[in-house]
Amino acid sequence: MVKRLRIPVPAQGLHEITDAIAEVVLGAGLTEGLCTIFLRHTSASLTIQENADPSARHDLESWFNRLVPENDPHFTHTDEGPDDMPSHIKAALTSTSLSIPVIDGRLGLGTWQGIFLWEHRRTRSSREILIHLR
Amino acid sequence: MVKRLRIPVPAQGLHEITDAIAEVVLGAGLTEGLCTIFLRHTSASLTIQENADPSARHDLESWFNRLVPENDPHFTHTDEGPDDMPSHIKAALTSTSLSIPVIDGRLGLGTWQGIFLWEHRRTRSSREILIHLR
Amino acid sequence: MVKRLRIPVPAQGLHEITDAIAEVVLGAGLTEGLCTIFLRHTSASLTIQENADPSARHDLESWFNRLVPENDPHFTHTDEGPDDMPSHIKAALTSTSLSIPVIDGRLGLGTWQGIFLWEHRRTRSSREILIHLR
Repeated sequence: MVKRLRIPVPAQGLHEITDAIAEVVLGAGLTEGLCTIFLRHTSASLTIQENADPSARHDLESWFNRLVPENDPHFTHTDEGPDDMPSHIKAALTSTSLSIPVIDGRLGLGTWQGIFLWEHRRTRSSREILIHLR
Repeated sequence: MVKRLRIPVPAQGLHEITDAIAEVVLGAGLTEGLCTIFLRHTSASLTIQENADPSARHDLESWFNRLVPENDPHFTHTDEGPDDMPSHIKAALTSTSLSIPVIDGRLGLGTWQGIFLWEHRRTRSSREILIHLR
Repeated sequence: MVKRLRIPVPAQGLHEITDAIAEVVLGAGLTEGLCTIFLRHTSASLTIQENADPSARHDLESWFNRLVPENDPHFTHTDEGPDDMPSHIKAALTSTSLSIPVIDGRLGLGTWQGIFLWEHRRTRSSREILIHLR
């Protein structure tokens, strides 16, 4: 089964989507299987990160912003704004798809793991993901 | 079903393989499911990127070339040429496998998404991928 | 089928787990299918790399250590030690899940490919992975 989900992204940064995915898994009534999440965009991405301490996410985001700064004089793809090319690069450095086994009817995440949609653009209102379950 | 595909790579850089994968999906007659692409090499990789404007790919490639320059004096693995170690690093930073849901008999890619084989070596003629469909 | 495996990680760095995964695939008696490996942690990761020459792994690790040095003055998430925040960043830059097609009853890896659990922390004794096969 494939389910389409629209995720609100009020701002740049990491948005946790663990609960939204867990709800789809629960609703599917699958006891054991595989859950694959796919993001239908190239200037945002998916990542699994610690969801306990927000400071870890803050440091992760600011490290990526220092690695891929806006207004790099080498960039030629600048028509869509200074945050566009860094967004594509950050997406390439992280993930567009993630696969998580389902055990005992639930996502087999570790204790500290959360699933995040990482919005790399500054002005976006929502993103679409596909969830495949089997 | 698993299909083996040999992809010609005439040069270093991003080579779009969306059509080749789409053809395999169409040929399989699968209405809904999951398409997993696996690259059988460690000095090339897979990525999903914008396939509209070539300048985005150009900037992505040149950014990676600046991040991982050849002839880094720290490298000890240099027997296979100056482009070999940067290739392994770029492969680790991107992806060896990608999973894309199939909906209505087609790859569930977003409007601007293309699938690319990223050749990191300078002299290669082809690469092998495996496509799993179910 | 989902199998849980505990992997000993005696030290920081790349630990090859190809044989452990191959054994699970063999034991499952699957002729053709997909093997998905999922790591249940956020300060370690998975990667597929060359398993022939150890110097390639050495250079890969030391390059990542130079890219994400400990004691970055920008880090605020420092309670769990100087190697914690770099671990989360390295995990985001690599992979938490990997999918490898199974062909003729075996992992469809290329000749030089090995599967590695990349331990980013300095003091750890083991990590848990889930292996989904179908």
